Amino acid sequence: MSTHPLEELLHPRSIAVVGASSSGRGGGFVNPLLEQGFKGALYPVNPKYTEVLGLKAYGRVRDIPGPVDFVISSIPAAGVLQMIADCAEKGVKLIHLFTARFSETGRKDAAELEQEILRQAKKAGIRLIGPNCMGVYYPAEGIAFNEGMPKESGPVGLASQSGQAVGEITGNAAQRGLRFSKAISYGNALDFNECDYLEYFTQDPETKLILLYIEGVRDGPRFLKTLRAAASVKPVIVLKGGRGEAGTRATASHTASLAGSREIWNAVVNQAGVINVTDIDEMVDIATAFQFLPEMRRANVGVVGGSGGSSVMAADLCEEAGLNVIPLPDEVRQELKKQGNAIWDWIGNPADFSISMGDESSADAVTKLMARHPNFDFIITFVSGPWRRDPESFSLEKHLARYSLNDIANKPVVMVFQDRPRYPGNSDDMAEYDKIVEQMKVKFIQDGYPMYPNIKRAASAVSKMISYYKKRG
Amino acid sequence: MSTHPLEELLHPRSIAVVGASSSGRGGGFVNPLLEQGFKGALYPVNPKYTEVLGLKAYGRVRDIPGPVDFVISSIPAAGVLQMIADCAEKGVKLIHLFTARFSETGRKDAAELEQEILRQAKKAGIRLIGPNCMGVYYPAEGIAFNEGMPKESGPVGLASQSGQAVGEITGNAAQRGLRFSKAISYGNALDFNECDYLEYFTQDPETKLILLYIEGVRDGPRFLKTLRAAASVKPVIVLKGGRGEAGTRATASHTASLAGSREIWNAVVNQAGVINVTDIDEMVDIATAFQFLPEMRRANVGVVGGSGGSSVMAADLCEEAGLNVIPLPDEVRQELKKQGNAIWDWIGNPADFSISMGDESSADAVTKLMARHPNFDFIITFVSGPWRRDPESFSLEKHLARYSLNDIANKPVVMVFQDRPRYPGNSDDMAEYDKIVEQMKVKFIQDGYPMYPNIKRAASAVSKMISYYKKRG
Repeated sequence: MSTHPLEELLHPRSIAVVGASSSGRGGGFVNPLLEQGFKGALYPVNPKYTEVLGLKAYGRVRDIPGPVDFVISSIPAAGVLQMIADCAEKGVKLIHLFTARFSETGRKDAAELEQEILRQAKKAGIRLIGPNCMGVYYPAEGIAFNEGMPKESGPVGLASQSGQAVGEITGNAAQRGLRFSKAISYGNALDFNECDYLEYFTQDPETKLILLYIEGVRDGPRFLKTLRAAASVKPVIVLKGGRGEAGTRATASHTASLAGSREIWNAVVNQAGVINVTDIDEMVDIATAFQFLPEMRRANVGVVGGSGGSSVMAADLCEEAGLNVIPLPDEVRQELKKQGNAIWDWIGNPADFSISMGDESSADAVTKLMARHPNFDFIITFVSGPWRRDPESFSLEKHLARYSLNDIANKPVVMVFQDRPRYPGNSDDMAEYDKIVEQMKVKFIQDGYPMYPNIKRAASAVSKMISYYKKRG
Repeated sequence: MSTHPLEELLHPRSIAVVGASSSGRGGGFVNPLLEQGFKGALYPVNPKYTEVLGLKAYGRVRDIPGPVDFVISSIPAAGVLQMIADCAEKGVKLIHLFTARFSETGRKDAAELEQEILRQAKKAGIRLIGPNCMGVYYPAEGIAFNEGMPKESGPVGLASQSGQAVGEITGNAAQRGLRFSKAISYGNALDFNECDYLEYFTQDPETKLILLYIEGVRDGPRFLKTLRAAASVKPVIVLKGGRGEAGTRATASHTASLAGSREIWNAVVNQAGVINVTDIDEMVDIATAFQFLPEMRRANVGVVGGSGGSSVMAADLCEEAGLNVIPLPDEVRQELKKQGNAIWDWIGNPADFSISMGDESSADAVTKLMARHPNFDFIITFVSGPWRRDPESFSLEKHLARYSLNDIANKPVVMVFQDRPRYPGNSDDMAEYDKIVEQMKVKFIQDGYPMYPNIKRAASAVSKMISYYKKRG
C-alpha cells in the first residue's frame, strides 16, 4: 500500500463540484462522476440552481450538510479565495482547480492571486491539484472528468500537465485497449507537482507502467532523482512539451512552465533509463506494447498475412525500426513441402500470400510453423476487413474464421490492421465494412492482442519496448 | 501532345477482358470499366459463359466481331501463349497481364514461359503491361481496375510496380482529394519498364506531379538519366520497396526484382533531385501539399486553433520538421489590443484558444491578422468536430460557421483535423459526430485545402515541399 499523501486524498468519501450546472463544463464534471458511478456523496454547488442533473444543489460549500473531502472548482478565478475559506471551514482535504487564468496569463495580478491561493490552502491544510487542468480519472473510485471514459481499471498510470493531452491520451489509449489505474492532469503544478505525481505512481501497486506528459520542471535535481527512482522499478514513457524555442514560449503561456533545452532534456531522460517520445501516437503505441506483450529481449520477427508490395514495405520498415526480419528457416520450408503446400519454395519472411490464390490454409500453416520455430521471437500479422466482392466472408464470424490464432498462443502476436483500398463515395458499402472492422478490432483487443494502424508504428513500438528490456537486462 | 508509345496505346477503341466472370477478380476488371463508363466496346471473354455482367461473352479473343485494341488477361499463366496467338490474329496492340506466377515464383519453367511470352508478343507487335499487376487507371478514358475509383481526373501520375501499393496509394490519395491523370501498376516489368512509365509521365501534359513505387531497376544508368530528366520538369516522389536485406529478398519473390543497397539508392535519388519517401502515408502527404499548395520557398508558419498541450506540441513538431514557428509580431498584438481582445497580451504563435473561454471571434481575429502580416508565409489551422455538449454547434452548417476562412484566402492554409477525446462504447453519439466530421473534411477538401490527420504529418509534408522548391530555386 502506498503511503504517499495522494493515496488517502484520492479515496474521498464525497465530492463537491463548485460552479456546477446542467450544461457546459461545470456540468461536465458532474455528469462523468454520475456516469462512472462514484459511490460517495456528490454535491453540485452553485447559488444559481437548486438542482443540477437531478442532484440537490447547494449555494456554497459550507451549506453542504455532510462532510466534504474533495472539491472540484470550475468557478472563475476571482471566486477561488472565498471558496477556499469555505472549504477550510468544511474540512476539505483536496481541491482540484479546473479554474484557470492564473500565472499562465503572464499577468502579475493573476500570478499573485495564484500564490495567495497556495498560501491560504496551505494554512487550511488543503492540498491542490492544478490550477488550469482536468483533474482526476480514477475508474476504481468512480472518478472521471470526461463522459464515456472506460469504467475498467488497468495497469497504466498517467500524469499530464495538459488537460488537452490527458483527454487525447486517455481517449486514444482506451480505443487501443489500454486501461488506466489513474490519470491525473495537473496544469500549473501550484502545490503537487510532477515529482509528487511521479513518486505517487512509482509507489502505487495499481500502476505497472507510467506515462508522463510534462511541460516544465520546477526542481531539476529532484526531478532527475525521482525519474531515476521511477524508471528503476517500472517502465516510464515521457513526452516533453516545449522542446524547442516556439514550444518553450508556448509552455509559458499554457502552464506557466519554464522549459529547458532539447539537448539537456534528452540527456537527462536517457540517463534516467526512461523512454523518450515526441508525440502522443508514439506514447500510446509503446504503452500498447508494454500492456499487451511479455518482456521481450530478442527482435527476430516473422511477418505474415501481407500481400505483395505491403510485404516488401513491411520488411523495410521492420528493419529500419530495428527488428530482424530473418529469412524463413529451411526446416519450415521443408515442412511446408511435406504438407503438400503448392508455394513451399516461394514463400519467405515476410510471408506474402498474394499468390496463394485464395488458399487460406497456406497462410495458416506458415504462421503456425513460424510460431513453432525457435528462431522466431514473435509474429506480426496483418489483419484486414472482409473483401466486398466475397459475400461469403462479409460477416464478422465468417471473416474472423480466417484468423485461427489460438494455435500460435505460444508466441507473442502483434496485429496490424491493413485497410482495403477505399475510395470516397461508396459510403453505403463502407458503413457495413467499417462496422465489421470495428467489431474485429474490439474482439482482437479483448483477446489480448496489441493492435496498430500500420506496420511502421507497430515495428517502432515493439522495437522500443525490446530495447528497453534489453537495456534493463 | 506526348509521342510516347504508351500515349496511343492508352486510348483503346475497345477492351477485352480475358478470363472474365460475373464474380471474383476477372469480373472485378469488367465491373470497374462499366462503372467508370468506358466509352469503347467492352468484351468479356470466357468459354464458360455466354454473358458476364449483362455483356455478351465470347469464347476466345478471335471470336470477337469488332477490332480489339487492348486486352486485360486474368487467366492462369498456362493459357497466356495461346491467348497471345489469338491476340496477334486480332491485331491487339496492348495486353495487360494481371496473370501472375511467372519469374516471381523463382521457378525456371515459369521464368522461361515469361520470356517466351515476351518473344511472342514482340513478334506480333503487341506491347505488354505486367505481368503480375493491376494495370491501368485512366479516369478520362473511363478505364479503372477497382470499383469506386474517382471519375474525375487530376494532376497526379502514378507508376507502381506493386498492385497492392497502387490500390493503397490511389485509395488513400482519393480520400485526401488527390486526383490522378493516370495510375499504372506494372508488376514484373517484362516489356514496358519503370523507365518507360517515367518517360511517359514526364512527357504527359496531363501529369503535373509524378509518384513512383518501385522495387527493382532493370537498367541503372538509363534509370538515373530518366529520373533526372523527369525531376528537371516535374516534382517526382519515389518510394523504393526493398531497401534492406529482408526487403530485397521480398522483392525477388514479389516482382522478380533485384534491389540494390539503401545507400546507393539514397545517393542516386538525392542526386536526381527527387523526393525520397519510405512509406505510402508520407508519399500521399507530400503529394497532397503539391496538389493543393502554391510554390512556396519560405517556411514561416502561423499555427492557430489548437488548444493547450496540442499548441505546445504543435510548436515542437513544426520546428522539428523544419518550419519556423516565429513569435507573434508585436503589430498583431497591438492590433488585437485595439480591437479590445481580452487575451491580446497572452496570445502567441501557436495561437492557443483554450483560455478564450468560448470567444470564437478571438481565434478568428488572430487568424486574419496573422494571414495579413507579411512575416507569415502560411497558416496551419486545427479544425475539429463539434463538441457534443454544445447542441448549438452539432450540425454541419452551424459548426462550419466557426471557420470563416474566406477572409484569409491571401495566404495558403493547411488544415489538421484534431479529434475530440473519444472513448469506446459511445457509438451512437459518435456515429452522428463522425458523419459531421466526414462532411466537414469533404467540404474543406472540395474548397481546396490540404487536410492532414495530425500536425506532425502536416508539418513534415509541407516542409519537404518547401525544401523541394527552395532547392530548385
